[in-house]
Amino acid sequence: MPPLLGVEDRAIFGPFSAALADAAQAVTLTHFDTSVIVEGKPAKNAAFDPVTIADRGAEAAIRALITAHHPAHGIRGEEYGVFEGDSEFTWVLDPIDGTRAYISALPVWGTLVALTRRTRPVLGIMDQPVTGERFIGFGDEAFLQTNHTPRRTLRTRNCASLAMATLCTTDPYLFTTAERTGFERLRSATRLQRYGLDCYGYAALARGGIDLVIESGLEDYDIAALIPIVEGAGGIITNWRGEPAWHGGQVLACGDARIHQEAMAILSECVG
Amino acid sequence: MPPLLGVEDRAIFGPFSAALADAAQAVTLTHFDTSVIVEGKPAKNAAFDPVTIADRGAEAAIRALITAHHPAHGIRGEEYGVFEGDSEFTWVLDPIDGTRAYISALPVWGTLVALTRRTRPVLGIMDQPVTGERFIGFGDEAFLQTNHTPRRTLRTRNCASLAMATLCTTDPYLFTTAERTGFERLRSATRLQRYGLDCYGYAALARGGIDLVIESGLEDYDIAALIPIVEGAGGIITNWRGEPAWHGGQVLACGDARIHQEAMAILSECVG
Repeated sequence: MPPLLGVEDRAIFGPFSAALADAAQAVTLTHFDTSVIVEGKPAKNAAFDPVTIADRGAEAAIRALITAHHPAHGIRGEEYGVFEGDSEFTWVLDPIDGTRAYISALPVWGTLVALTRRTRPVLGIMDQPVTGERFIGFGDEAFLQTNHTPRRTLRTRNCASLAMATLCTTDPYLFTTAERTGFERLRSATRLQRYGLDCYGYAALARGGIDLVIESGLEDYDIAALIPIVEGAGGIITNWRGEPAWHGGQVLACGDARIHQEAMAILSECVG
Repeated sequence: MPPLLGVEDRAIFGPFSAALADAAQAVTLTHFDTSVIVEGKPAKNAAFDPVTIADRGAEAAIRALITAHHPAHGIRGEEYGVFEGDSEFTWVLDPIDGTRAYISALPVWGTLVALTRRTRPVLGIMDQPVTGERFIGFGDEAFLQTNHTPRRTLRTRNCASLAMATLCTTDPYLFTTAERTGFERLRSATRLQRYGLDCYGYAALARGGIDLVIESGLEDYDIAALIPIVEGAGGIITNWRGEPAWHGGQVLACGDARIHQEAMAILSECVG
């Protein structure tokens, strides 16, 4: 497995990724809570898949900075596809994760910027401009920076069993029938449930507000930035087979390894 | 029906209610995103019903100000019950609406302060301290004030039919069986759905981000403050029989009267 970033690389790419999030923010905040134009794009499935001017503008702003400062690096973005590059490093971008929240004027979307090293995510930023929260992780450490408070270390909270856990998923209606069976069993086993959070659910897990996030049908750009944050805060994040979640698909994130094990036992019967 | 507030009363009670929200904020932000102590209280139903130190502290801070400045006014609060008073005015308080979001470190809860005149809500504030947003309504006008931008007028958005609408509800699993049937029909008729928002859903509706909010099992303090905001922004809010929503219960709020009519036709068969 490729190593995490060394100290020198963190000192370079940490501030650089923050500058990428700043560039995106200038675009996303301009169009937030206004009459954004929702373009049609070919639907990947029957669900409503909004893409806004802000989404495209923010990714373009990020790509321009990467191209200018690290021209050899690869880029994979939700909106503008793949630039292969000539480096072990690739940036994986979702300029607005949670476009449904964004177009509904809700503060639970985020800009996702990941740096991967030979497919392993080694740096992730989740930036939420409305609340002024920026989550950054390196796989073995993670931090929360806000507009008003000093940077603080993120730690997931302890949770001994599912019966005490808070679970979240973006939309219980998005699972396939087999997945839904697993989800319903998991939901019934937990104490409290939250919905509609996209990336914000993983950030809430990293800060110790939520214990378990379960999703399916994710793309790599939906999850890459969140892995170094969750793992850096002490959490565990895998697909429903227990393998690395780098490629998206069915994802299970837990703040405490004990409930990850408990949840895996339930899901193992429902893996597609 | 009791009249809305006159100009002089707005000049008095507008700033006073903002001071009440400030007092609550000092308490709620102190305990947000920390290890809050969740006290047990007798459950109204089988669901998890968290009450935090912050909830109680915030309501106490608000009540102290009302008692000091308007001792004749009545007070109804979620945490400390009813003070009858000797006035046509009563303050209806929910210090933290969305305690489940609050204890999960999510920014979609709010402090609700309503002023009622002989049971009719004539002033409402929904304050969200993490995002710095404060929604205020007087029934015929409503505003959004943030930490960073000038006060702006709130207007719901046009929406000609349910097929184009964004719907939200706090938790689809909280409806009774009969209610769930109505909800599912409504959900299927809409384009986009959001969950888990409590009061924040009504605020998003008032600002034109969401078109329809449907809930059931509400208390008066869950809804009183939101009525002058939704109506002041041009929306329509009733119970599922089309009557005033002042007393809570089953509530339907719409940004556009056309979809309210369409939704009522669907719900009329499922009213409990």
